[in-house]
Amino acid sequence: MPEKKLIMVPGPTNVPDRVMRAMMKPMISHRSEEFRVLYRELTGNLKYLFQTRGDVYVLASSGTGGVECAVSNIVDPGDKVLVPVFGLFSERLKESVKRRGGEVIELSLEWGDAPSVEQISQVLDCTEDLKAIAIVYNETSTGVTVRDLPKIAEEAKRRGILLLVDAVSILGGDKLPVDDWQIDICVTGSQKCLACPPGLALISVSDDAWNLIEETSRPFYYDLVQMRRFNEKYETPFTPALPLLYALDEALRMIREEGLENRFRRHRICSEAFYNAIEDMGLNPIPIKEEYRSNTVIAFRRPEEVDGATVRRLMDERYGVVIAGGAGKMKGEAFRIGCMGIVSPAEVIQTVIALREALIDQGFKLDVGSGLEAALKTFNNYNYKI
Amino acid sequence: MPEKKLIMVPGPTNVPDRVMRAMMKPMISHRSEEFRVLYRELTGNLKYLFQTRGDVYVLASSGTGGVECAVSNIVDPGDKVLVPVFGLFSERLKESVKRRGGEVIELSLEWGDAPSVEQISQVLDCTEDLKAIAIVYNETSTGVTVRDLPKIAEEAKRRGILLLVDAVSILGGDKLPVDDWQIDICVTGSQKCLACPPGLALISVSDDAWNLIEETSRPFYYDLVQMRRFNEKYETPFTPALPLLYALDEALRMIREEGLENRFRRHRICSEAFYNAIEDMGLNPIPIKEEYRSNTVIAFRRPEEVDGATVRRLMDERYGVVIAGGAGKMKGEAFRIGCMGIVSPAEVIQTVIALREALIDQGFKLDVGSGLEAALKTFNNYNYKI
Repeated sequence: MPEKKLIMVPGPTNVPDRVMRAMMKPMISHRSEEFRVLYRELTGNLKYLFQTRGDVYVLASSGTGGVECAVSNIVDPGDKVLVPVFGLFSERLKESVKRRGGEVIELSLEWGDAPSVEQISQVLDCTEDLKAIAIVYNETSTGVTVRDLPKIAEEAKRRGILLLVDAVSILGGDKLPVDDWQIDICVTGSQKCLACPPGLALISVSDDAWNLIEETSRPFYYDLVQMRRFNEKYETPFTPALPLLYALDEALRMIREEGLENRFRRHRICSEAFYNAIEDMGLNPIPIKEEYRSNTVIAFRRPEEVDGATVRRLMDERYGVVIAGGAGKMKGEAFRIGCMGIVSPAEVIQTVIALREALIDQGFKLDVGSGLEAALKTFNNYNYKI
Repeated sequence: MPEKKLIMVPGPTNVPDRVMRAMMKPMISHRSEEFRVLYRELTGNLKYLFQTRGDVYVLASSGTGGVECAVSNIVDPGDKVLVPVFGLFSERLKESVKRRGGEVIELSLEWGDAPSVEQISQVLDCTEDLKAIAIVYNETSTGVTVRDLPKIAEEAKRRGILLLVDAVSILGGDKLPVDDWQIDICVTGSQKCLACPPGLALISVSDDAWNLIEETSRPFYYDLVQMRRFNEKYETPFTPALPLLYALDEALRMIREEGLENRFRRHRICSEAFYNAIEDMGLNPIPIKEEYRSNTVIAFRRPEEVDGATVRRLMDERYGVVIAGGAGKMKGEAFRIGCMGIVSPAEVIQTVIALREALIDQGFKLDVGSGLEAALKTFNNYNYKI
């Protein structure tokens, strides 16, 4: 078996042993009562996770496939869709709408920025016949969270425009009450804040979204109406990725045991410790405003003195900690850390130490204890057990 | 842990412990050297399995999703595609082409029948501007294999028409040399003859197919051109379903150890034992010609005297053997057994015994030893170790 490393990339993330072991459960037929019992409990727990009374659907697919499913159930060729673009994953969302034949109204922002409700409203004011807004809630490439999302959702609902949210790198790690905020269609992946292996996408659908979906020319594999029909009997239309469902079932149990609020608080405090450590070391987070900083993805600029790939290689080979580099046009220019899933002070400290040492190895000047002390102090401020 | 049963449905199928345990390997980043080493070996072994020199792509998706990927890379709205329809899965293939906007030229056959090269040629003779033939090689709903497939492929190639093959329930269990037969695009799933858990689809692409694909308006998640670009560096465009890749890697090693020819022979002899047992009990296989009988899916009609669901429930509860009922319009009218993956005389005999006993429990008259003796005799004829 290969050596186990600390995986601190923004997904896939470390998976607890309980969840790994769940995959060992025996193969069953997906048309059996055993399966229906599993699926009923699992989808019930998904409603808790999404904070919705509506159904949540499970796809054998990566997160991007989940987003594509959402897009292709909402968008017909020629439909106008507003997409704010402020990083690689919002670029991908735009591309998905385009490939579906949608007409993209792009709100283009600097990487590190986030769309505000005022900017969205301005576009809405001067665009006729807009069918939907498709937005990335947490831009994994820049570590930016769209803090105006609830206001944007309110504005969309007031104007009768559908809201599609890509929450792949945030749901389960930060606030996202789908019904309260009136999110019409919300997508996440199994391998990020849920601390489950990759391979599943999860999608919630509001009543307003159903009205649109029923009138859309949906693809066959991604047809949500067909999924709803099977969901009623606690089945899936096509063979589900059973071991991953077992894992998700166990991951959701762990989330219920911890409680969503505790889980969000843990992510928030760990991210604060990361940001304090990074700034204490003289490094610069990518988000252009402090309030935009994500609690689940910590993205910061590479200092000029070091080579990014070498720093990451040293962290991996000498300290067993794997973080990500910049994505898309920031390749080579940034570091990104996943602050997700089972993240706790232990992982934060191990990561900060590895980063410190790798930077020093590369000739970057750091004061004794810088970064590390700042992280420890953050946890102490909250009386958070280390 | 739930009790482990013998899963004899036509997928998902029983998974060997070696393959299950492989899923426990540690989480790694899909942008790491460890991943590239894994993916390089895995895709190499996929070429062996598909008997192709071309690339084989791995999708986080069910088999149907894989078929949809193939269709949406080949078919643009308005394109004419010939689809022979002779069961539920060929119906699905037709629906997938339709939803993509393709114009379906349907060759409609009775369930239990299979398209012949003569029938296909007749349609080709009187259809202009046909872009592709999309065909199910093994119809899981009726247990029918299209034995004319190599001839159909030759005819398609001769006329410059692309051939897309849904081989979900057969590849790895029966003959399908992709390059020799000149199959342009061939799709299978992980959970059938490969004895791997469900959740992955596999697709091979010929040079002729690439020429078409490059000119098609592909969807974003299923874009094979993008997959090819990442494949060159042994990566996937989106987060792969890592535990399932570990499982597939191990399953492919087992296939190489056994050798394809031995594996096909094992499936053929086990299926022959099943058919001999079934006919010896006075039951009727669904395929209308003996040569159409599948070596991987054994489908036969329910005798009038018994209730199908009750027979299957008894087999499950009393004997721990799970088989499938009829699919689609044959629901309630048929039984279907998966003769796939790790199938060996032990599984055949356990299944035949369970079926015998459940039929007798339901009042069906059977001679002492009928079915069972016929299965045993088949294995003895081949000197096949029981």
